[in-house]
Amino acid sequence: MNKTIFVFGNGKADGNANDKNILGGKGANLAEMTHIGIPVPPGFTISTEVGTYFMKNNTYPLQFKSDVKKGLKFVEKNMNQIFGDSDNPLLISIRSGARQSMPGMMETVLNIGLTEKTIPGLIQKSGNSRFVYDAYRRLITMYSDVVMEKGNSNLATVKDGIREQLEQIMLNLKNKKGIKHDTELSSEDLSQLCKLYKKKIFEVLGEEFPDDPFLQLWGGIGAVFSSWNGKRAIKYRKIENIPNEWGTAVNVQAMVFGNMGDSSATGVAFTRNPATGENKFYGEWMVNAQGEDVVAGIRTPNPLNENSKTSESSNLISLEQANPKIYSELLVYREKLEKHYRDMQDIEFTIQDDILWMLQTRTGKRNGGASIRIAIEMYENEEISKEEAILRISPEQLDEIMHPMIDPEAEKLSEIITKGLPAGPGGGCGQIVFTADDAEQWAKTGKKVILVRTETSPEDVHGMHVAEAVLTARGGMTSHAALVARGWGKCCIVGCNEICIDNDNKSFSINNKILKEGDWISLNGSNGNVYNGKINLIFPDLDQNIYYKKLMKLTDEIKKLTIRTNADSPKDAIQARKFGAEGIGLCRTEHMFFAPERIINIRKMILADSKEGRKIALSKLLPFQKSDFKGILSAMSPFPVTIRLLDPPLHEFINLNNSQIKKLAFDLSISEEKVKERIESLHESNPMLGHRGCRLGIAFPEITKMQAQAIFEATAELISEGIQVFPEVMIPLVGIYSELEHQRKVVEKMAIKIQNKLNVKFKYQIGTMIELPRACMTADEIANHADFFSFGTNDLTQMTYGYSRDDVNGFLPLYIDNSIIDVDPFQSLDQKGVGNLIIEAIKKGRKTKSNLKIGICGEHGGDPKSIQFFNNVGLDYVSCSPFRVPIARLSAGHSEIMNK
Amino acid sequence: MNKTIFVFGNGKADGNANDKNILGGKGANLAEMTHIGIPVPPGFTISTEVGTYFMKNNTYPLQFKSDVKKGLKFVEKNMNQIFGDSDNPLLISIRSGARQSMPGMMETVLNIGLTEKTIPGLIQKSGNSRFVYDAYRRLITMYSDVVMEKGNSNLATVKDGIREQLEQIMLNLKNKKGIKHDTELSSEDLSQLCKLYKKKIFEVLGEEFPDDPFLQLWGGIGAVFSSWNGKRAIKYRKIENIPNEWGTAVNVQAMVFGNMGDSSATGVAFTRNPATGENKFYGEWMVNAQGEDVVAGIRTPNPLNENSKTSESSNLISLEQANPKIYSELLVYREKLEKHYRDMQDIEFTIQDDILWMLQTRTGKRNGGASIRIAIEMYENEEISKEEAILRISPEQLDEIMHPMIDPEAEKLSEIITKGLPAGPGGGCGQIVFTADDAEQWAKTGKKVILVRTETSPEDVHGMHVAEAVLTARGGMTSHAALVARGWGKCCIVGCNEICIDNDNKSFSINNKILKEGDWISLNGSNGNVYNGKINLIFPDLDQNIYYKKLMKLTDEIKKLTIRTNADSPKDAIQARKFGAEGIGLCRTEHMFFAPERIINIRKMILADSKEGRKIALSKLLPFQKSDFKGILSAMSPFPVTIRLLDPPLHEFINLNNSQIKKLAFDLSISEEKVKERIESLHESNPMLGHRGCRLGIAFPEITKMQAQAIFEATAELISEGIQVFPEVMIPLVGIYSELEHQRKVVEKMAIKIQNKLNVKFKYQIGTMIELPRACMTADEIANHADFFSFGTNDLTQMTYGYSRDDVNGFLPLYIDNSIIDVDPFQSLDQKGVGNLIIEAIKKGRKTKSNLKIGICGEHGGDPKSIQFFNNVGLDYVSCSPFRVPIARLSAGHSEIMNK
Repeated sequence: MNKTIFVFGNGKADGNANDKNILGGKGANLAEMTHIGIPVPPGFTISTEVGTYFMKNNTYPLQFKSDVKKGLKFVEKNMNQIFGDSDNPLLISIRSGARQSMPGMMETVLNIGLTEKTIPGLIQKSGNSRFVYDAYRRLITMYSDVVMEKGNSNLATVKDGIREQLEQIMLNLKNKKGIKHDTELSSEDLSQLCKLYKKKIFEVLGEEFPDDPFLQLWGGIGAVFSSWNGKRAIKYRKIENIPNEWGTAVNVQAMVFGNMGDSSATGVAFTRNPATGENKFYGEWMVNAQGEDVVAGIRTPNPLNENSKTSESSNLISLEQANPKIYSELLVYREKLEKHYRDMQDIEFTIQDDILWMLQTRTGKRNGGASIRIAIEMYENEEISKEEAILRISPEQLDEIMHPMIDPEAEKLSEIITKGLPAGPGGGCGQIVFTADDAEQWAKTGKKVILVRTETSPEDVHGMHVAEAVLTARGGMTSHAALVARGWGKCCIVGCNEICIDNDNKSFSINNKILKEGDWISLNGSNGNVYNGKINLIFPDLDQNIYYKKLMKLTDEIKKLTIRTNADSPKDAIQARKFGAEGIGLCRTEHMFFAPERIINIRKMILADSKEGRKIALSKLLPFQKSDFKGILSAMSPFPVTIRLLDPPLHEFINLNNSQIKKLAFDLSISEEKVKERIESLHESNPMLGHRGCRLGIAFPEITKMQAQAIFEATAELISEGIQVFPEVMIPLVGIYSELEHQRKVVEKMAIKIQNKLNVKFKYQIGTMIELPRACMTADEIANHADFFSFGTNDLTQMTYGYSRDDVNGFLPLYIDNSIIDVDPFQSLDQKGVGNLIIEAIKKGRKTKSNLKIGICGEHGGDPKSIQFFNNVGLDYVSCSPFRVPIARLSAGHSEIMNK
Repeated sequence: MNKTIFVFGNGKADGNANDKNILGGKGANLAEMTHIGIPVPPGFTISTEVGTYFMKNNTYPLQFKSDVKKGLKFVEKNMNQIFGDSDNPLLISIRSGARQSMPGMMETVLNIGLTEKTIPGLIQKSGNSRFVYDAYRRLITMYSDVVMEKGNSNLATVKDGIREQLEQIMLNLKNKKGIKHDTELSSEDLSQLCKLYKKKIFEVLGEEFPDDPFLQLWGGIGAVFSSWNGKRAIKYRKIENIPNEWGTAVNVQAMVFGNMGDSSATGVAFTRNPATGENKFYGEWMVNAQGEDVVAGIRTPNPLNENSKTSESSNLISLEQANPKIYSELLVYREKLEKHYRDMQDIEFTIQDDILWMLQTRTGKRNGGASIRIAIEMYENEEISKEEAILRISPEQLDEIMHPMIDPEAEKLSEIITKGLPAGPGGGCGQIVFTADDAEQWAKTGKKVILVRTETSPEDVHGMHVAEAVLTARGGMTSHAALVARGWGKCCIVGCNEICIDNDNKSFSINNKILKEGDWISLNGSNGNVYNGKINLIFPDLDQNIYYKKLMKLTDEIKKLTIRTNADSPKDAIQARKFGAEGIGLCRTEHMFFAPERIINIRKMILADSKEGRKIALSKLLPFQKSDFKGILSAMSPFPVTIRLLDPPLHEFINLNNSQIKKLAFDLSISEEKVKERIESLHESNPMLGHRGCRLGIAFPEITKMQAQAIFEATAELISEGIQVFPEVMIPLVGIYSELEHQRKVVEKMAIKIQNKLNVKFKYQIGTMIELPRACMTADEIANHADFFSFGTNDLTQMTYGYSRDDVNGFLPLYIDNSIIDVDPFQSLDQKGVGNLIIEAIKKGRKTKSNLKIGICGEHGGDPKSIQFFNNVGLDYVSCSPFRVPIARLSAGHSEIMNK
């Protein structure tokens, strides 16, 4: 066993900030602060190695007990106090501290060392018996809970645990005396309480509260170590992917008190404003209080300074005003710490008898906007490098500033009625409607609506478009609702299994609650919570956000990956360009078919029983497609636009009810029977594995021809108008090179025909989606016929796992709960399975054509982890929905920096 | 350009049998025969290089014309005749001859050299003017058709082509004269006909029939070369995978005549009996006739010898009797040729004026039984090696002898009413029924039935079992009907799209024909033909077939691959052992659930809303499963039995109609609504990619537990009875190692529990199917938890291609027609795509566990080409349906031999 304890105090420390693996985060920072001359109460850190030894062997290493005594001596010397001494007792705190912060997940015991013997001495010394009995009361409560109860059985807090029972005693006393706050209890009250507490403890737990300071000390150390394996801690580590083997360190430190009277105080502060990022000291303090009082929210804390005043605290005296000397000392430490740690710090301090002690410093949490501002300002002030500034911003933080959010303060106070999957980030608030048509109707009258559906289909798109947000009872993160909403940056929650929709009565029930059409609800699409009633939205304004703009500029200087967007309309294309898209990587042509004047022709095409009939119907679709393509190509000029030919199985277009069948039969002058027959004949057991993708274009080359004609006529006309456009025709679902060869011929022939007919030369490319495992394994053959590859990772994930996106919710939640799978592979690329197929395809494709352009246009194009993977394996571009473009740019930047 | 012509004649030849690439098969054999002293009419072969040059450039190489003249000189010298000479004219034939035989696909012109000038000389010389005009008539007919019509435009025969028009003239003449046979036409008649023919030719084709022998010669050569690109030839090459680049050679050879009078004759013979394989000379001959007369079937040919007599020809004189001298000469050549070519030969001969000429020899076609007998007898006679004997038998030939077949002679005379996919080989004949229950009912009364269904499902199995054959209107080669029938070796035709079933009226229509319940039909499951009426069946008796047994013994001495079988019942297991299976590679447990007394419990299990409810239902299934496993394990003792745990999506078991729902609701004492709700909740968009395989066992571990309990209790009880059994538990559809880890734990725990409970030790293994692309890519991780891998190539093919077996018929026929794909990948393994995934999985799996046992249990386990692949990539075993076991053994032997 190596060194077991690491002392710190009075400007010297055994460790430093780099020793987090051994000392934990807290311990390392305490050592570091001591080193740089910050006044930290002396103490020592017990290493994580002792912790893991203890966990494994249920005992301590040999020399450990004597080491602890040495550490205690060091503290006694520095505090000039003696642990357990009747005249001048030293009190200590015992706190956990893992490598990575696990806030609130492990245990703490304060005021260790208070006993019948040391109480009188401390009263004598502090001249404040109320303070002493209050401290004793706190010790007894914490110790009985943490050490005697949980430390024994490693149980999580139970409802009628000892802590609750003790608190009930205090409540009874307060009721009896008719008082409201703990602070109104007198010294005698507290002394009396301590006696009652100890009696109760013996009754409930069957053992005496220990009156020996060393018993307290060892009990505390053991309990804090054991709390590493508490239920909450284990669950948290699972979520945060913290290895169980790390274990925690334990910090034993001299107590200092902010509650020793009016010359004492406690406070927390951020070196910059964590809500805005503004470079102004920000915090709160409270006189005659301990840290837990601030957290408990019993009194409104005082503002630290002018900047920190809120509407609630504007009348309260600031530390700056109350104690300018201490405040200016604090300012010095603020500067010192931020300079030292090169980031905004979250600090805790205590003033004991007009002496300032710094208890903790750590990197301060901040919201997305603040994070960006702080990073940019620190970079501009040359405190951090460009790379560091970029790495400081997480993709989630960037995402945060792009969407309207529901007011986080109001959110805390609102009633959660259910929870679903956070499919479209941001917030939404509106009145419930149950059909797309109702949504449209209500929106026309100026109402804000939330569209609630069991699932959505392409025919709901117009209603989704006008809705503030979309809520579905079924579906996963890549369901239709999720894909469409995310593409628009619209708030969306899917897979709310608890919702039972009653379309007839226009209402839905959640458990026993019923909500009706017109009722207000609010959605937080970033965490999946659904709230009853209205919550205000906070809207971002990226155009005005100079920090965002600067961040993106820095990122673009570093990233190499091209970021394109998935867009099916000129509006989306324009939106994506604003976000920095450098082309369209996926323009789905089938989405263009659903408008009523178009769908009739696609249905006629499908129901035609001859090539001629199909051609006539297709010829009616041609002008629509052409004008769509003109719009999109010119919106994206001069960047390339990848247009995918028709992909979904035809029966998706003829999912009709009886009245629609009737109408269609009338329009087509054929019998309803005939319509039904044809629909029936298109039925497939597994449409995802059926007649779709290029299989359609091969069976019906006239569809490919029409689409190619529309693309190339649009191109030729735009070129004639002097607009530079570059279409890339993408053949979907190729699994065999000969499929691509076949479709390529059809498209090329049309390109030549149009160039000749319109007498315009234009450039174009023909490529394919790589979305079948077979395409990956035979990419060398396919590359012979492709100008580019674009990975369709949605389908590729489906086929590789054998999961249907539409059905995966039947077992995926169970898989994630049981740790069979870590993360939904439709959200973040499965690098081991799907990723290796991608690597194989790239290797094979580039073996055939070393300069083959390769990108990805599946949902994973907007996922940061996946983007890093794509960058690392040598893709040329990723394509994602417009609202993910900035995030993709940032992630691409991160990837480059981390590869250096 | 290399040598363009290769002469042969009078014991000398430029080439030999090894020169097939240059001389074509026919030319090489003519050269070879000449070398070994067989009397072949002299001639020369024009090389395939000239053919490809001509195809490419539409002209001949420079020196070619003079080379042909040299060749002609050689023939003239050897025949002592002069081409075009008025006194002693040489006539020649021009025949095609590709590297690989393409029987009847290309053209031939005979009697070239007959002109107004040479006719009198030939009459003079032969003393037979009728013969000469008959030859002239034939020349004019062939030449006008092959050279003047087809040779001009490369058109296939059209209905009113010149040949038909000329034949009409002859018919008119015969009618006028009141005669029936061509042979009754007199010399004058024929001379007259020739004049009428030439007139007609000029009228129809606008040019004169050439009267210059050299014009005829060059016309003939060009037309025969051109016939390589005739429609029929191209189609045939596509089917047989013959490259277009090969081109054909052309054989120019002196004519000899079997129709020069009663001392002339023609004949064909096999060196052994092609129907039985018996080592006896077999053939037919015809006096005063040309080869085409034998083929045309105008007269019944005479038997060659006693052995060759049939019921039809028993009264006719044999060659042996008619001309013992020639016959004994023929016997010498028979021996010489068979010894030389070391295989049974198919020979053609002509006797001209009592002189025997051998026109052709080639390896004789034979049926499966004959093939085996010939190979075994030649091996036993030390004419060929063991390896050669094995390679001589194709898997198709072996298959042929395993199933009853419909009488091939009767088949030719029967009316084909439709055609489907040949899903289960062999023949079947019976009365039509439309439901499984009817099938059972009728069969009980001793009737033979054919079950006709749109598709079959597991609930039809009892009806399929009693039926002679199964016919379905939908489904592909791996549909339910196909899989089940093939497993039983039962005749089955699927995907008969033309059939329209009217279940209400118990009839079906094909185009305009209607067949009713009780009507007789006959099926040829080896070619997919459906016949109207009864056709007799011919039944094999393998137990009596000593040649088959010897072949299998030889094969087993050579093969290394273990052959297991897919079997779900003791009966199948016993059948497979007879065929030589060395274990069960796939025992599907779900098939065991469909019997009425079982299905009710599986339905109860599915509809239970609690774990407890499921457990109760499962406990009722346990005894059934256990007794099934006991039966199968002991039937296969001491070989291993791989048992796959429940695989299909649960809703397959609750595909119910309203009355079934009603009954189930009653049985379960729950509402119909509840039953419907649960069924609805199990609905999936793409069940193939849904909640199935190990996903079920993970969601409902109690299913896995019950199955493991049944397996291990069966094992323990059998072991106690002294029966050696070895179960291998197979977890299906694993894509993530943690799935297998999870299920393995459940199974292992049960194994330990049963061993302790019953106090019996037994051995077992736990492994997984590798049937998802992800399983292949992560096989290294999965191997950590697997004792064996078994490739499920059906699902792996589905996922790799993104094809649903149930839907693939929507486009696969089109793909095959358009050469997008060569062969249905569900029938023969796609080596490039799926195969590479398999190789990847083997590599990764064995990297983790070098001795990992790996096999395959998909449909491809019975496909010869696929078996060779599996052998080459290092699998330990393949598993196939019982009736494929001998074929798999043979294929495994082939593979070993070919690898040497």
